[in-house]
Amino acid sequence: MTEIGRVAIVGAGQIGTMLGQALMDTGAGAAEVAVFDRDLEVARASVALGGAQLALERAELVLEADTVILAVPVDEIVRWLEEWGGMLRPGCLLLDTGSAKVQVVAAMRQYVPPLAHAVGGHPICGTETTGPAAARREALRGAIFALAPVRPDQVALDRAADLVSSLGSVPLQLSCEQHDRILARSSHLPHLLATALACVCLGADDDRQMVRAMVGPGFVGASRLAEASPEMVASFALANSMELSCALEEFGRELALLAEALGGGEVALRSALNRGGEARRELVRISV
Amino acid sequence: MTEIGRVAIVGAGQIGTMLGQALMDTGAGAAEVAVFDRDLEVARASVALGGAQLALERAELVLEADTVILAVPVDEIVRWLEEWGGMLRPGCLLLDTGSAKVQVVAAMRQYVPPLAHAVGGHPICGTETTGPAAARREALRGAIFALAPVRPDQVALDRAADLVSSLGSVPLQLSCEQHDRILARSSHLPHLLATALACVCLGADDDRQMVRAMVGPGFVGASRLAEASPEMVASFALANSMELSCALEEFGRELALLAEALGGGEVALRSALNRGGEARRELVRISV
Repeated sequence: MTEIGRVAIVGAGQIGTMLGQALMDTGAGAAEVAVFDRDLEVARASVALGGAQLALERAELVLEADTVILAVPVDEIVRWLEEWGGMLRPGCLLLDTGSAKVQVVAAMRQYVPPLAHAVGGHPICGTETTGPAAARREALRGAIFALAPVRPDQVALDRAADLVSSLGSVPLQLSCEQHDRILARSSHLPHLLATALACVCLGADDDRQMVRAMVGPGFVGASRLAEASPEMVASFALANSMELSCALEEFGRELALLAEALGGGEVALRSALNRGGEARRELVRISV
Repeated sequence: MTEIGRVAIVGAGQIGTMLGQALMDTGAGAAEVAVFDRDLEVARASVALGGAQLALERAELVLEADTVILAVPVDEIVRWLEEWGGMLRPGCLLLDTGSAKVQVVAAMRQYVPPLAHAVGGHPICGTETTGPAAARREALRGAIFALAPVRPDQVALDRAADLVSSLGSVPLQLSCEQHDRILARSSHLPHLLATALACVCLGADDDRQMVRAMVGPGFVGASRLAEASPEMVASFALANSMELSCALEEFGRELALLAEALGGGEVALRSALNRGGEARRELVRISV
C-alpha cells in the first residue's frame, strides 16, 4: 500500500507548514493533514496559512496518523523518537526533515518498531527565516528531497519517494553518512562562515553607522545565513559536529592558500580565484 | 560651476554602463555621454544598451570631456592616471568607481593637475556579474556612493556629490583609509570566503553529481561572489592587501571561536551564533 492517508506533521515552522501546504493541494493524495506544535498558537497560525486542516492539541494524537512527518530541529527529532518512536503503529510511514541525518537515522533504527516504515528525509529548500509565515509552498517544486534509508525496507523508501513526488519535489536516495558529509560543507559550514563574517564586519570601524551605510549587496548575500535561528543551527551543527569540524579545517586550509596567493601577486591570486569560480560554476549550474 | 557637461566614461562594463544609463536620463543634466573601452565592441554594446550616446574610438578623446568617470578595475584606474591624469583639463571633474580607494586617491594626488577636480568614488551597488549586459540602472537608485577627498577641494566634492545625486544615489563622504578598512571586511573578505567555500564544497564527495544535487539555497547565496571576475577581484584585493590580510586574520579568530563553541555544546554554540545574528541585524536593517 502506498497511500499517504492521514498525515500528522510535528512542527509548524517554515518546513512543516510548507509540507502541509503542499499536502493540502488536491491531488497530493492526503486524506487529512493535521499539525502538532508544542506551541499551539504556532500550530493554529500554520492552519490559518493553509498548512493543515487542524491543529492537534495533544502530542499523542500524532500516533493515529498513517504518515508522520517530523519537521522540528534535529535534537527535537531525536527526543521525539525517544519518547514516541516506539509507539508508532505498524504500517505507518515516518519521515523527518532534519538537516543532519546520521543521528536521526540511528535513533529511528533504535526506537521505531520494525513494522513501521521509517526513512530519514531532508528537503533541500529551507531558508534562514523561521515560523509558519516563512513557508512558501512553491519552494518544494523541483527541489531535491534527500531520502536516507533506515533499514532494508523497500516499502518505506517507495512510500517516502511517492510522498515526496506528490509534493512536486525530487526524491534522491543517499546514505545518512554521505548526506552529512556533503551537508557539512554545503550548508552547515556556510552558516558558521556567515556568523563569523557578520562579527568581523561589525568591527570594521568604530563608526557603526558608517559601516552600516557601506554594506552592499555582496555582504547582504554572503552574511544572510547569520540570521538563521541559533537554536536550529546549533541543533544541526552539534548533530554533525565531526564532519563540520573537518569542513572547518578544510576551509582554513583553502583560506590559507588564498592568503598566500594574496601575498604572491596578480597571477597567483587570479589563479586561486579562478579555481573557486570554476568550483562554483560546477556546483551551481543556474544561479538562483 | 556645478554643471556635468559632456561626460566620458572609461570602461563599458557593468558599472560604467549603469552610470551611463543613469546619466542618459533626461534631467540628469549631462550634455553628452560618451564611453571608451579598450575593447571597442564592448563600448558599442554599452551604447546599444543605452549606456552612452557614442563609443569613443581613441583613448585621448576622453580628455575633451567636462566630467571623466573611470569605471575599470582598480589597477587599470591607477594605470590610466599614470598615462592620462596629467593631461586632464583645468576645471574638469574626475571621478572613479573602484572598490579600493587608498591607491587610487594617492595616484590622483600624484598625477591630476591642481586645476582639475578629482574625487575618489565608489558606488556600493555592484554585483558579481560583469559586462554591459549586467548593468541595471535601477541599482543606483538609493544606493550609497562613497566619495573620498583627494585634496582640500570643496568644488570637487560639491560637483561629485551633485553628480551622484543626479543619478539617484546618495553621496557619502569618508576618507580613502576608512573606505578601504570597511570594504576589506564588508566586500573584499566575502569574495575570498566564497571562493574558499566553493572549493571545500566541491570536494565534499567523490560523486560530484550528488554534491551538485544536494547544494541548496544557502550555498547558492553564500558562494555567489566566487563567480565574480578574478581580474576584478584580484585587482581590488591586491590594492587593499594590507587591510584584507588583517580582515583574514580577524576572520580566522572568529572562526576559531565558533569551532571552540562547537566543541562546547549547545549553550556556548547558541550564544556564539546569536552574536553573529545580532551583528548581521545591526548591519542589514532590511534584508534584500
